[in-house]
Amino acid sequence: MGNRTGHIFHVSTFGESHGGALGAIVDGCPPGIELDLELMKRDLERRRPGQSDLTTQRKETDAVEVLSGLFDGITLGTPIALLVRNRDANPAAYEDFKDLYRPSHADYTTQKRYGIRNWQGGGRASARETVARVAAGSIARQVLQELAQIEIVAWVDQVGEIGSQCDPDTVTIHAVDKNPVRCPDAEAAVKMEALIRQVRSDADTIGGVIRCVARNVPPGLGDPVFDKLEADLAKALMSLPAAKGFESGLGFSSVGMRGSAHNDVFFNDQGQIRTRTNHSGGIQGGISNGMPVLVSVAFKPVATIFKPQETVDQAGESAQIKPRGRHDPCVLPRAVPMVEAGMALVLCDHLLRLRALRGDDFLKV
Amino acid sequence: MGNRTGHIFHVSTFGESHGGALGAIVDGCPPGIELDLELMKRDLERRRPGQSDLTTQRKETDAVEVLSGLFDGITLGTPIALLVRNRDANPAAYEDFKDLYRPSHADYTTQKRYGIRNWQGGGRASARETVARVAAGSIARQVLQELAQIEIVAWVDQVGEIGSQCDPDTVTIHAVDKNPVRCPDAEAAVKMEALIRQVRSDADTIGGVIRCVARNVPPGLGDPVFDKLEADLAKALMSLPAAKGFESGLGFSSVGMRGSAHNDVFFNDQGQIRTRTNHSGGIQGGISNGMPVLVSVAFKPVATIFKPQETVDQAGESAQIKPRGRHDPCVLPRAVPMVEAGMALVLCDHLLRLRALRGDDFLKV
Amino acid sequence: MGNRTGHIFHVSTFGESHGGALGAIVDGCPPGIELDLELMKRDLERRRPGQSDLTTQRKETDAVEVLSGLFDGITLGTPIALLVRNRDANPAAYEDFKDLYRPSHADYTTQKRYGIRNWQGGGRASARETVARVAAGSIARQVLQELAQIEIVAWVDQVGEIGSQCDPDTVTIHAVDKNPVRCPDAEAAVKMEALIRQVRSDADTIGGVIRCVARNVPPGLGDPVFDKLEADLAKALMSLPAAKGFESGLGFSSVGMRGSAHNDVFFNDQGQIRTRTNHSGGIQGGISNGMPVLVSVAFKPVATIFKPQETVDQAGESAQIKPRGRHDPCVLPRAVPMVEAGMALVLCDHLLRLRALRGDDFLKV
Amino acid sequence: MGNRTGHIFHVSTFGESHGGALGAIVDGCPPGIELDLELMKRDLERRRPGQSDLTTQRKETDAVEVLSGLFDGITLGTPIALLVRNRDANPAAYEDFKDLYRPSHADYTTQKRYGIRNWQGGGRASARETVARVAAGSIARQVLQELAQIEIVAWVDQVGEIGSQCDPDTVTIHAVDKNPVRCPDAEAAVKMEALIRQVRSDADTIGGVIRCVARNVPPGLGDPVFDKLEADLAKALMSLPAAKGFESGLGFSSVGMRGSAHNDVFFNDQGQIRTRTNHSGGIQGGISNGMPVLVSVAFKPVATIFKPQETVDQAGESAQIKPRGRHDPCVLPRAVPMVEAGMALVLCDHLLRLRALRGDDFLKV
Repeated sequence: MGNRTGHIFHVSTFGESHGGALGAIVDGCPPGIELDLELMKRDLERRRPGQSDLTTQRKETDAVEVLSGLFDGITLGTPIALLVRNRDANPAAYEDFKDLYRPSHADYTTQKRYGIRNWQGGGRASARETVARVAAGSIARQVLQELAQIEIVAWVDQVGEIGSQCDPDTVTIHAVDKNPVRCPDAEAAVKMEALIRQVRSDADTIGGVIRCVARNVPPGLGDPVFDKLEADLAKALMSLPAAKGFESGLGFSSVGMRGSAHNDVFFNDQGQIRTRTNHSGGIQGGISNGMPVLVSVAFKPVATIFKPQETVDQAGESAQIKPRGRHDPCVLPRAVPMVEAGMALVLCDHLLRLRALRGDDFLKV
Repeated sequence: MGNRTGHIFHVSTFGESHGGALGAIVDGCPPGIELDLELMKRDLERRRPGQSDLTTQRKETDAVEVLSGLFDGITLGTPIALLVRNRDANPAAYEDFKDLYRPSHADYTTQKRYGIRNWQGGGRASARETVARVAAGSIARQVLQELAQIEIVAWVDQVGEIGSQCDPDTVTIHAVDKNPVRCPDAEAAVKMEALIRQVRSDADTIGGVIRCVARNVPPGLGDPVFDKLEADLAKALMSLPAAKGFESGLGFSSVGMRGSAHNDVFFNDQGQIRTRTNHSGGIQGGISNGMPVLVSVAFKPVATIFKPQETVDQAGESAQIKPRGRHDPCVLPRAVPMVEAGMALVLCDHLLRLRALRGDDFLKV
Repeated sequence: MGNRTGHIFHVSTFGESHGGALGAIVDGCPPGIELDLELMKRDLERRRPGQSDLTTQRKETDAVEVLSGLFDGITLGTPIALLVRNRDANPAAYEDFKDLYRPSHADYTTQKRYGIRNWQGGGRASARETVARVAAGSIARQVLQELAQIEIVAWVDQVGEIGSQCDPDTVTIHAVDKNPVRCPDAEAAVKMEALIRQVRSDADTIGGVIRCVARNVPPGLGDPVFDKLEADLAKALMSLPAAKGFESGLGFSSVGMRGSAHNDVFFNDQGQIRTRTNHSGGIQGGISNGMPVLVSVAFKPVATIFKPQETVDQAGESAQIKPRGRHDPCVLPRAVPMVEAGMALVLCDHLLRLRALRGDDFLKV
Repeated sequence: MGNRTGHIFHVSTFGESHGGALGAIVDGCPPGIELDLELMKRDLERRRPGQSDLTTQRKETDAVEVLSGLFDGITLGTPIALLVRNRDANPAAYEDFKDLYRPSHADYTTQKRYGIRNWQGGGRASARETVARVAAGSIARQVLQELAQIEIVAWVDQVGEIGSQCDPDTVTIHAVDKNPVRCPDAEAAVKMEALIRQVRSDADTIGGVIRCVARNVPPGLGDPVFDKLEADLAKALMSLPAAKGFESGLGFSSVGMRGSAHNDVFFNDQGQIRTRTNHSGGIQGGISNGMPVLVSVAFKPVATIFKPQETVDQAGESAQIKPRGRHDPCVLPRAVPMVEAGMALVLCDHLLRLRALRGDDFLKV
C-alpha cells in the first residue's frame, strides 16, 4: 500500500533496482498544462548515476517514456504514466552474498517484512526507485510553476563535517549545478569534493545535509492538524533512501532560543505582509505564510562500503561480507533533485487541496 | 481533509481550543480488545494543562466520554468515539487582540488559508487539539500491547541548552514521571526546571527535545517506499504543535560519520538476529529491524510570550501586541504523552498493515 | 476502516443503535459558508422514527449538537462534529433473542466479522446509524446550494407492487412531504399507505423503490475511471440499510432498448447544450452532462417481522425466533432523506474535486 | 484522482483508447504468491476485441508485460506493474467528427470536465481501459484462490429481451465459454447470438444483463457502514463502461415481496450454518454470510451506432453525425471478464481488510 503518495495530485510508483523497469502513474494532474519533457529530462539527468566521478558508475540513460495522459504535449487530466527501462542492471554482482544480510541495508528487514526478497540488488530499497519520484516530481514542479510561479531549489549544504554558506533567497539551480557536488558555495564545494574522493579511496562512505527552498509559495498551504505542511514535507523527505533527519526553518537550532528571539514578527512590506526574520522556515501552525519555505534533510553515510564487515546469513550463522557492485561514496550530489521532487510533490498536492477548499481565490492574496 | 490519520487504524479528530468540545473517532480498531479506560485517563492526565507550575494554568479535567464502539469494555470493531468537553475556555482573554496577528502563531496563516478565523484562542492550531490525539493514541497503545507486547516511552531529553543522559533500552514511564519536567536524568531535570522557571519569570519561553523509544517492535513494520516507518513517524511527530525537527536513530549526528562507523552489523544473539549498535534507530530501509525504534523531536520555544512585540493587524497596519491568556513557558513536559501517542498511532497502523499482508505469521518471527 | 466516506468532503460516522450516541465528523467542508441548522433539523425530522403511524414507534427527538467547526454560524474550514444522543434505546427488548440470529439481519454476519456483537439492537447495522449521514448530508446539501445552486429531491416511487407517476424535472420536497408515505403522486400515495398498514397488521413488512433527482448539477462532475459519478452514487446508496438495487437513468429498462432509441441526442437549447431525452440520467461516461441526475434505489422488505421464523442460535442449534422491538413495516418513507443525504455527500465531494482540478472555471460553463 | 481503487489491494490504471499503451500498478498484493501468467492471459483473451464476429473487429493481442513485483514468478509484495501496448489504434477514423459530440458518449462530458479532449477515440471513456482492470483483476483472482479458495464466475444472463436460465451454484467458466455470447444456457445463447447479429446488420446496438457469482466466500467480508460489500461491488461494477444498473441478490425483484417471503432463514447444514434460500445474494448487513455472493449488472446499448444522428459541435452548432470506427454491437460477451475482475478486486481488498482486523482467524470459521 505504501507505494503511493498525495491526496489529489496522486503518484504511484513501481520498479526494483535490478528488475525490468521503473516508473510511475501520476493521477490528478490538472488538465491543460503544457509539459516540457526537456525539463523532466534535466531533472532526471541530475539524478542519473554515472554523471560524475563522485557518483556510482552504473550507466543508465534514464530516458523516460510517457505512455499516456498527454495530447500534443498538453495534460489531459487523465493519468500520466512514465516508464524508465533498466539498461545496466547487473544482478550477477550480488550472487556472492545473496544469502547474507548487508549491514544497515534493507536486506534483513525486507526478508522479515515480505518473507521473500529479490537479492539481485536492493529492490525497492535502492535509491534507484527515486528515478520514478524525480520524473513525477518534474511534472509537479511544472504545475507549480504554471499555477503559482513557485520555484524550488535544493543544494548540498554539508558533507561530513564540511558546512557551507548559501543564501536561500537568491540561490539558483544554475549556481547549484556549477560543480559536481552541487554546493553553491564554491569554496566549500572544493573541500567537499576532496572529502568524497578521500572517502571513496578509503572504500568508505560519508553523509551530509541538503537544504531546499521553495520561493513564491502563497500563504495558506498546509492542512492541519495531521497534514500540516511541514508534516507532509517531513514524510516526503524522510522516505528518501538514507534520510535520517528533517528540519523545518531553524529546526534543532531553535531549541536553544528564547521565544522572544525566535518569533518572526510581522511587518507591512510595501503592501505585502511579511516577517522580519524567517526562523519558522515559511511555515506557521503548519501552514505556509508566504515567506520562503525552507527545510533541511540529513542523509546518513551510504551503507555499502567496500571493507569487510561482520554479519549473519539467512540461517542466522555468523559470516563476513565484502560487497561488490557500484555504489555512491556519498549520495548527496544525486539527492538534490530527489529532495526537490519530494518538495514539489507535496506543494503541488497542497496547492490543489487549497484550490478545492477556496477556489481560485487563494491566488489573489 | 487533514484532520485524519492512519490507513487501517484510522483516526479523525475535531475541536477548537475555545469551542465546545474536542474529540476523535477511531475507526479500524481490532475487535475483542479489552480497553483500560484508566490507562487512557493516565495518558490524558500527563498531557493535561495545570498539572504543575511548569505548565499553563488553564484548568481542564479532560475527562473523556466514550460514546460508542465498546460493549462491556471490549472493542466491537465499530468506531470508537471519544468526547472531551472544554471547561475552562476563556475567549474574552483574546478580545483585545482579535484583529492582530500574533507573531509565529497561526493567526495569519489560518486567516489566509480559510478566509475566516475564530479569534477566541488558537482554534485547531492550539496544542489543545492534542487531547484528542492522546486519547486515540491510548487506544493504539493498548492494541500494540495486546497484539505484540510493544511498549512506548518518551522523555524530555533537552530543554534549551541543557541536555541529559538516559538509556533508551531501560527507561520507564515511572522514571520519566518522577519529576514534573519529565526528564529521567534527575540531575538534568533539576536544571531544566530551574531554566523553565527562569524563562517564565522573564515573560519568555524556551524549546527542547523529546526522545521516544518503542521496544519489542517486531521486524517488518514500515511500508516502502512512501510510507517507510520513519517517514510516517516523521509526519506524525512533525504535525505536533511547535515541532520543527525530527531524527530517526542518530539523525543529524550520522552526517559526520563514515559508513564503516555508522553501519549496524548483525550478530546472532542466542538465536535472535540483532545488531551490535543501533545507530539506525531500529529502522533500516524504512522497515523496523527488531531493535528499539528510537526517534527525537525538536520543539521550538512557545510563540506566546508576555512581552510587547511588533506585528500587523488584519488591515495590514503596523501594531504592537502583548498577549494575555494562559500559556506554557515550555511545552516539553506536556509534549511527552503527545509524542508517545504519535508513535503509538503509527506503529498500530503499521502492525495492522503487516497483518493484512502476512496474516499472523509476522508475530512468529 | 469502512466508517468514512468522501475524498475531499470527508465524513466519519460513529454510533450503535442502542449505545450512548451517534454522530459524525465532517472534514473538508469549505470555510465561509453560513449553515442553517434549521434545515439540518428539517432533514433529521424527516428521517426521525415515530414521525407517523407508518414508521417505527421508537421515540427519538434526534436533536443534534454541533460541537465544533462553526463560528457565529459560519463554517471555519475545520472539522464539524455532530452529536445525537440516543434517548429511547431499549436494550431489554433484545434480551430474549440475544443468542439467536435474526433471519436476514446482520446478527450472524456481524458475529462472524468481528467475533463479538452488541446484541442490544442492530448496532451499526441498524438504520439508526443513518441519523449521522443525514446530519452530515444536510451540510453537503447546503454547500451544494451555496456553491452551485444544486437542489436534490427524493421520493417514494414504488411500495410493493404499487408504482406511481412523478416528474423529476419539477417535483419539490414540499410535494413529497404532503403525505406521510412521501410519494408526490397523491393517488398512488393513498394505495401505498393502505398497503403499508395492511402489511403491518399482518406482522409483515414490504419493500419499495426511491427515486432521487439532483437538478442544476454543472457538467463535469465525476472522476473516471473508478470514481465515475454513478459508481460513487451506487456505492453511497447501496450502503444504506436494506438497499439491494441501484439504477442510473433508465437502468435495467435500458437493456431491452436499441442504441438508436436509447441515445440522448444533443441540441442547442437557446445557447445551452442539452439532450432531447435524459435516458442516461444526466451522466455520460461517468460524468454529469448538465441534465438532471436521476437515480433509483430498491429497498428490500425490512427483515424484522413479528411472525415466528426458523433460525439457529450461536451454538448452531436449531431454534425459533419471534422478534419484538419497534420496527418499520416499510422503510421507504424514512429512507427518502437518507437517499437525499447520500446523493448530497457524493455530489459535494465531486464538486470540490472538480474545483481542485479546474479552479472556479467550472462554474462558468 | 479517480483512477485508483482498493484500500489495501490497491490498483492504479492508466491509458487511453488510442494512446501508446494501457496498464496498471497493483500495490498491496501479498508476497509469496505464485502468479500464473497463463491465467492472466486467459482472462485477457476473453476480454480481447476481435475474438468473435459478435465483437468489435479491432485487432489487439493484448499481450501483457509484467515490469516489476515478481521474482521467479512469485510476488515480492512490491508493486506489480502491468503494461499492454496499443497495436491497432486508428486515430484517423475519428478525424471526421473530432469537433462533434457523439450522442450518449463521453465526448461532451470529457470536454466539460477537463477543458481538453483527445478526440482520437474514446480516451479513458472507451471500454479499452478495462484491459488494465482485467489484468489486475486476474492477480486478485489468484490471490483469492490461494488464500481462501474463492472462485468467481460471470455470465451473460440477458441480451435485449432474451433471458436465460443458469444455476449460480454450479455454473463454470468452461460452461460460460462454450459459445461466443457467453451464456451457459445453450438455447438462450443461440437466440442471443441471432439478436446481436440482427442488431449489427441494422447498424444498431443492444444491451443486456450480466450476473456474477463468487463461491466459497468466507463470512465476514464487508466493512460497514460505507464500505459494505454490496456498496463496494456496486461501485466497482457501476464504474464499468455502459453499466447503468446493479443488483445484489434479488435486487429490484425483492421490492414486491413480503419480509416473511424474502427473509433467508438459517439452518444447520451438517455443522455449517447456511440459509435455506439466498435472496440476499450472500450479503446481509453489508457483510458476506458464507452463501454464494450473487450480483447482476445492467448494460445499456453501446452508444456508437452507425446511423445518422442529430448532435451539436464544439461551438454548439447543430450538426449530424454518423460515426465510423470499430465498435461492439453488444458489449455483453466481452464484459463477462470485466465483471469478474471487478468482483475479484473488491473481494481481494476485503479479504485483506478482514485479515488486518482479525489475523488469520477468519479462515478458520
